[in-house]
Parts: sequence; C-alpha cells; structure tokens
Amino acid sequence: MDLHGRSLIGRETLGRGANSFHAVDPASGARLAPPFLEAIEEEIDAALEAAEAAFAPYRALKPDRRAAFLREIGERILALGDVLIRRAAAETGLPEGRLVGERDRTVNQARLFADLIEEGSWVDARIDTAQPDRKPVPKPDLRRMLIPLGPVAVFGASNFPLAFSVAGGDTVSALAAGCPVVVKGHPAHPGTSELVARAILRAADQCSLPSGVLSLLQGAGHEVGLRMVTHPLTRAVGFTGSLAGGRALFDAAARRPDPIPVFAEMGSVNPVFILPGALRRRGREIAEGLHGSVTLGTGQFCTNPGLTVIPGEGDTEPFLHRLAELTRASAPGTMLHAGILRAYLEGLRRMRELRSVGILEQAAAGASEDRTQAGAAVFHTSAEVFLADRTLSREMFGPSTLLVSWNSKEQLRRIVEGLEGQLTATLHATDEDVREFAWLIPLLERKAGRLVVNGFPTGVEVCPAMHHGGPYPATTDERGTSVGTAAILRFARPVCYQDFPQEALPVELRDGNPRGILRLMDGRFTRKGRE
Amino acid sequence: MDLHGRSLIGRETLGRGANSFHAVDPASGARLAPPFLEAIEEEIDAALEAAEAAFAPYRALKPDRRAAFLREIGERILALGDVLIRRAAAETGLPEGRLVGERDRTVNQARLFADLIEEGSWVDARIDTAQPDRKPVPKPDLRRMLIPLGPVAVFGASNFPLAFSVAGGDTVSALAAGCPVVVKGHPAHPGTSELVARAILRAADQCSLPSGVLSLLQGAGHEVGLRMVTHPLTRAVGFTGSLAGGRALFDAAARRPDPIPVFAEMGSVNPVFILPGALRRRGREIAEGLHGSVTLGTGQFCTNPGLTVIPGEGDTEPFLHRLAELTRASAPGTMLHAGILRAYLEGLRRMRELRSVGILEQAAAGASEDRTQAGAAVFHTSAEVFLADRTLSREMFGPSTLLVSWNSKEQLRRIVEGLEGQLTATLHATDEDVREFAWLIPLLERKAGRLVVNGFPTGVEVCPAMHHGGPYPATTDERGTSVGTAAILRFARPVCYQDFPQEALPVELRDGNPRGILRLMDGRFTRKGRE
Repeated sequence: MDLHGRSLIGRETLGRGANSFHAVDPASGARLAPPFLEAIEEEIDAALEAAEAAFAPYRALKPDRRAAFLREIGERILALGDVLIRRAAAETGLPEGRLVGERDRTVNQARLFADLIEEGSWVDARIDTAQPDRKPVPKPDLRRMLIPLGPVAVFGASNFPLAFSVAGGDTVSALAAGCPVVVKGHPAHPGTSELVARAILRAADQCSLPSGVLSLLQGAGHEVGLRMVTHPLTRAVGFTGSLAGGRALFDAAARRPDPIPVFAEMGSVNPVFILPGALRRRGREIAEGLHGSVTLGTGQFCTNPGLTVIPGEGDTEPFLHRLAELTRASAPGTMLHAGILRAYLEGLRRMRELRSVGILEQAAAGASEDRTQAGAAVFHTSAEVFLADRTLSREMFGPSTLLVSWNSKEQLRRIVEGLEGQLTATLHATDEDVREFAWLIPLLERKAGRLVVNGFPTGVEVCPAMHHGGPYPATTDERGTSVGTAAILRFARPVCYQDFPQEALPVELRDGNPRGILRLMDGRFTRKGRE
Repeated sequence: MDLHGRSLIGRETLGRGANSFHAVDPASGARLAPPFLEAIEEEIDAALEAAEAAFAPYRALKPDRRAAFLREIGERILALGDVLIRRAAAETGLPEGRLVGERDRTVNQARLFADLIEEGSWVDARIDTAQPDRKPVPKPDLRRMLIPLGPVAVFGASNFPLAFSVAGGDTVSALAAGCPVVVKGHPAHPGTSELVARAILRAADQCSLPSGVLSLLQGAGHEVGLRMVTHPLTRAVGFTGSLAGGRALFDAAARRPDPIPVFAEMGSVNPVFILPGALRRRGREIAEGLHGSVTLGTGQFCTNPGLTVIPGEGDTEPFLHRLAELTRASAPGTMLHAGILRAYLEGLRRMRELRSVGILEQAAAGASEDRTQAGAAVFHTSAEVFLADRTLSREMFGPSTLLVSWNSKEQLRRIVEGLEGQLTATLHATDEDVREFAWLIPLLERKAGRLVVNGFPTGVEVCPAMHHGGPYPATTDERGTSVGTAAILRFARPVCYQDFPQEALPVELRDGNPRGILRLMDGRFTRKGRE
C-alpha cells in the first residue's frame, strides 16, 4: 500500500498545505518516504465541520450499527497485515513482536467497546415515574440517560503508535459513545497514522456511515492541535503525551468562550514502595521485576516506575546487588525519536551532576546516539535529599529509576505526602507489612489513580475495572480514565426528559425497555420493562 | 437564637476581620442586625486546613455514619423552627410559605442522599478477577470504585436561601460523597447562612464527627470566594449564581498550578416552544401555565422561561389575549435584593428602547422600588429581529418573557440552532406536533440538560433521574448536575486496586460484598458476593 502523505477529512484526501515533514527511523536515523503535508487552517476547520455534519446521523444509529463499525475497524486494521507492523516498527523503533501485541490490544479494545454499547447499560438510564396525585404538586415523569457530547479531538501518543493513537482508546471510546473524532496524528509516526485512518475509513464505508465520522490531520508543530482544541465545534479533547503539551491544550480549552473538557494523560513517576518485610523476603525477585518494568519498552511507558522508595536499613543487599547486576548487563534500547533521547540524556546528565545523588549502576554496553539508543541507569539518594529537592520527583522518560532510602516512618510519610498526582503507586509488602503500613493506603489513594500490591505498574489491562488516570499532573481531570470501558463516560453527558410521550423518548428510556438494559427505575435497578 | 455575625471554622467561631456588612430586608429596605464580619485571608486558609484535617477521618466513616449525619442535619434545621423561616423571609423577601416548602425540600434532599449512600451502589464498583493462566501474561485482579475528592468549596445562591445555600444540594452531595465542605455564604442572607451552619455543626457534634467537616465563611465581596477556589487544599467547587460570577471562579480554578473542577450553574433563558397544534387547542391554558412559571417567585428561578417561541400565524389570539390579561393583572413581587432589581429594571429599559421589540403587556399595578418590587412584563418580536440581535437571547433575571414569532420552520430551526446552552427547553405539543416537529428534539438535546413536554421548566424535582445542568453557559461542566442524586458524582473520582489483599480493600470491593451493593463483576451486574 502506498502512503499518500495527506490529511484525511472524512473520506476526502486533501493536501493544500505548503509545509511538509518526514518520519525518521530512530534505529538508523534515516528519513522515511513519503513527505507528509501539514494540515492548514481551512483543512482543520473542514475536518471539524465534517465531524459536526456526521454527528447527528452517527449518533442516531442503533448501537449495534456502531458496534459493528468498531469491530470492522479491528478487522480492517488486522487486514493491513505486515505493512502496518513494518511501518510502525520503522517509525518508532519498537520491536515487531511488541507491535503485534499492541495491534491485538488495539483490536480487542475496539471489540470491548463494541460489546459495551451493544449491552447498552453504560448510558446510566434512570426513570422516576409520575405521581399525579402527589401533594402539594404532582410529580412529573422524569427519565435521564447519557448522550454523546459531539465532535471529539484526539491526540495520538508517540509511545503507543497503535493502542493510544489513531484507533486507540480515546478514539474508540469516543466513537462508541457516538462522537465523531478528529485525530491529530503524532508526527513521529505519520505513516502508521495514515494506514490506520484509512483502515477506519474503509470500515466506515463498509458500514455505510456518514463521512466525517473520522478525520486525520497531520502536522509537526503545535498549530494544528491548538486550532483543533479552540475550534467552536470541538466538544471534548483526549490527549496522551507530555505535561507541557497536555497543559497547553487544557489552558487553550479553558480560555475558550465556551470551555470544553480536556482529558490529558500526562504520565508520572509511578512510585514503587518496597516495604521492609518484602525487601527481606523477596529482595532479589523484586529487583528482577523492577528492572523488567523500568526497562520495558526502553522505559517509554506512562506507568514506568521512575521512583523506588526503600528502607535505608535492613536486608537491602540482595535487592541492590541484583538490581545493579541486571542494570549493568542490560542491552541498550532504541528510543522512539531523537527528542525523547535528548530529554533522557539531559535528565541523566542532570542527575550525574548532583553531588547529593549517587549512581547505583548503569548499563555497561555503550548506547549509540546515532541509533537513538538509551541505556538503563539506577540512581540513589536519601529521603532527606529527595524531600529537599522537588526536581528529583520529576518524570524522566526512559529506562531509569531513582532509589530513595528512608530511615523513619515519618520520612516515608513525608515522601508520600509530598508526591504530586500519579497514575499509579505500588507497594511491595508481606501480609505483615500491609498491616504495619496500612496507614500508607489512604495517603496513596489521594495521590494515584491505581494502587498495585506486589506487582509492577507497567501493563495496563483494558477492562471495566481499570482506571488509568490520576490527580494532576498525571492527568488534567482525575475523574476520567483513558483505558478501560469507563473511558466512554468522558464523552457523554446526561439529558433528562420530562413527561415525554413514549415515541419521542430514546429507546433506552421507553417503558418496555426493548434493549433490556439495566436501569434505575423508581429507585431500584432492574432490566425489566414497565407495564 | 442570637446571631453572632461571625464565620465558623468547624466548631470554632472566629472574627478577626475589620470589615463588616449587613443584610437588608428588601421588602422594607431596612438594615438587619447584626453586622457580619468578613472572613480574612488567614481565616479562609484555616477553614481549608480544618476541612483537610477532617477529610481522612470523615471519609473513613462507614456510610451509615455519614447517612446519620445527613439526616441529623435535616432534624437540626427543622428544629430551628420559625426563627429560620422568619430570618430567611426578612433577608430575602420570599414569602414564609415558600420558605417552609423550601425547607422541606432541603431536609428531604439531605435524607435522599442519606438513603443513597446507605444503599451504596453509587460508588460504581467494578471487579475483574484475576486470570493467573492467561497467555501471554497473567491477568491481575482489578477492582475499582469511586472515592471522595477532598475539601469542596460551595457557593450559596441568593434565590434559594435554603435549598441551594449552606445546606443545599451542593453541600449535601459533597458531604454524602465523603468530602468536607467550606461554604461561602451568600451576602444577601448571612443570618440564614449562620443559622443553618450552626445547625449542621450541632449535627456534626451529635454524630461525633471531626471538626472542620463544615465551615461557613462570610463575605460581601469576591475576595473570599477567589481565595477559597485558589487555595491548594480545595479539590472541587460547587456554585449557583450568575454567569459572571461562575466564569470568574472557573477561570481562577483553571489557572491554578493544579486545575480543579468547577461545577457552576449559571442559569439560562429556558426557551418554551409552543407548537401550532398545542397553541390552537390549548392556547388559553398554556398562557396560564406560562404566566405562572414566568412570575413564580417574582421570576427569580434559574429555570424561569425567559424566551417563548410561537408560530406567527394561526390561532394565536386566545393565548396572547390571556397572557396579556394575566400579566396586566399580576401583583408586583419583592425581589431578593436591590442589585437584582436594578439589573431587572435595566433589562426592561433596554427592551423598551428597542424599536424592533414591542411590549405585549405589563403589570398595571405600580411596583415600589423602595420595597424592591418588580412587575411582570411580556415583550414580543419577530424571528428576524431575534436572529439578528444576540443580546435578545440574554437572560433577564425576573418576571418577564420575550415572545418570538416564527413564520417558517426554517426560522424555527435557526432559532434553536442559534441558542446558547440551556438548563431546560420546553415543548408544548399535541401528538401530531410531536410527529411533525420530531426534528426539533435532537437539536434541543444538544442545547439543554432537560427537555420538558407540555409542562413548564420551573419546579425541579430532586430525584435520581433529574439533570439540572446543561451546555455552557448554563453551566461550566455539562456532565454535572446540581440537583438529584447524580450530583454526588461531581465530588468523587475512581481509584483502581490491583492485586490487593482482601483486608486492605475498601469494604465495597471485598469478595463477600458485605454491603450488598450492585457491582459489575467480570462483566455482569450483581449484588452477590464472590465465593
């Protein structure tokens, strides 16, 4: 399949822009053909107008039609075959095996949302029937459910070119809710984005959907994204990326004449707390798990454990020894693009210059900058130093972690209380540790969206109970998740219908409950209809 | 009971400020004793610190303890007896009968939230059990539920001194969620606020709750509120009031280093569409209902119908004649305070000066400005004029409505599409109208939070199916409601627990489901526990 290098506005291929950019293979530094034209203002506006035009017919479709579309997206992505995997590998430096797994995750995620909307109870339907005889005034009939917001702007992430990009969780949750989507493709993988967008548009054709249900806008700078977020027709934003990028979009959305919600997932340091009993009992094993999590995907996960908090005393040696050994022996990995490597190297340099921070170990094998490679590193410092220098709790995107040792529970408490918002927080703990450090859990609940016991934060399941979010700066809205079925709730709003005739009600709210969804009817949850 | 005129920080009565203000009886213009001291910066900070200190112990309480507190709040408010009703009447000019009804609503609302949290399913618990044998990697055990956000700042509204004030919907929904509340009392009814805050604090004492679960800060200007919203410990904001006030708080919250959600309900013009068949069949009756809704509470409701859209042709005479007749005969009503009256009179003056807008009728009886009285007025204009002048769709808080006549369905469509976000939209329609104008409903769904058929927008039921919200500028967050049990969702966020030992899980997520709540377990809704 030939890439055309153009933005897609619904089914239309455009390219009136004058500026272009190339993808670069990070493993070789080579520029990849073709050039990609940046979308111009008129094209961005046209994409939002197409999304708006698609909204009414798309949301009016029966849920099984939208579900069929989501499943067809999965099929069309699979049908791209090796072409997609090879292009994604070339653009990101990610191993093909990882990308095959990520493709499965992407396809399964679309299917999960298909199942969710086919089942239908996610709309949180509530019915309070009339009480015409109530005193002093009759009670009307009230029925309420969630409906889609309207066109959603989605920003693809660099580190998941499939699962958090054009057909990623933001896109499929918005499409499932009934919202057309305009995607700003990540400039590091424009070819992958084009392939996936074309697959989605073929699925839309197959399902006879309105054009404009999906558009892809290409662009290397910030202008395209800012115009998308400030466009009057955009109703919500999904973003995965850096704190600076996410905050800029949030600020732009908040300054609109009509502010709109921005769900930006901006990563975090994902602290891992290894408690004394666990360190004593399983030090070596925890070191192996931690090393795997720190270096997984060359450390390029939002849930990468960048901070590891350990007791300063006790039986730390097996843990430290094994962690150092594995770090030293670890092979360098290719990073997604030169910008990410630069930021990582700058972070390493800053840490090395700090006299108060030591280096436990680093990878012995040299990493080639020409091949965009990074090596693992483990730093260490004391709780005193960590508590005095807030820069040490900043995310350093890449395969490193900072060990912080505490010497009193009071220090441990202060470390936790000083944390910024996190996607995750992890405890390694024996049963006894859990009892002795039970006071940590309510503190961590305030700091993180997901708490893990005796595991590692990398690896985010796509399921109803997942919450991939957290207090700022992990996200701009701690009530939203960007992974799991609850992600759909970000793109919907309640509407209440008072004394509506049956035929004018949405089918989900009609007496007979023809869809058989779970509803809260006069205070009781039931799938039964009303006679 | 003597009013002390001081802010209350938890159980502590403070008053280090130098500035004071008085309540004014709008019906007489008389200043009411005592003076109320404005909270100073240190006191505002102390209130948030007290709320933060109360948060951990308060949220750790079993839900039945919080439910008992909410019920006790109701009892303590009732126990204030006539003292409360008389003070509220003096401060607001609202009739005592209305205030007795509003007190019942306030007490019943607290009880409704008590029932909600006792039942417990609102936490949206989801459990996905482990699959240790899954390939390529085991699936962990994941459990997720909603937990409270933390201290919430609540801004009382002037027009509901009980139901949307110190113990109003924002406060009780936040307390129900497990969040301590700091209320900024509305300066028009500081004595009512003090009485109610003291009742809540007596209830907190009775229930042995931590001090700081509720504070009341008094202040006549904007400074107190802005400092509350920008305080680092504040986690969310509930507000009912003007667009200017709500937007200022929203902007301040969005500019924070860590932005927080603001749920500001800012009112709207609540369009009423009278369709041709209904106008012909029930013109007189609709006029009577509309007049009642427009003049209810001297027009001082967020859901007041300020815009009435009618066909320009057909049998309009019985409707217009009856509406004019009732308007002319209507008695003047006392407004809440001089500022509201000034804005209403300014609005009337502006409308009268417009040559393109006519006056259908106004109240014949003179309204006394000294007694803060306003008279009803009905204006009329054409769709052409309305569509050309956006200022005509602005809310004019008071007992008036603007009739707009359309001469084609295209004009009607353009009127609807040009609307800003609304709390409500109402249709008067025969069955035939509903069929002929079915295309209006999807358009109105995008514009309003609640759609009413053959009723009037005033009168907002407190129940699970209510949605009192709507697209901006009706609110700053169309996903939130400030009335009904779903209001609790504004003050909670999900947290996911991965591979947690049973005893460390919140009770709602334990295998046995000891609270018997409805949970989504491995994709199925059930109240059963897991064996």
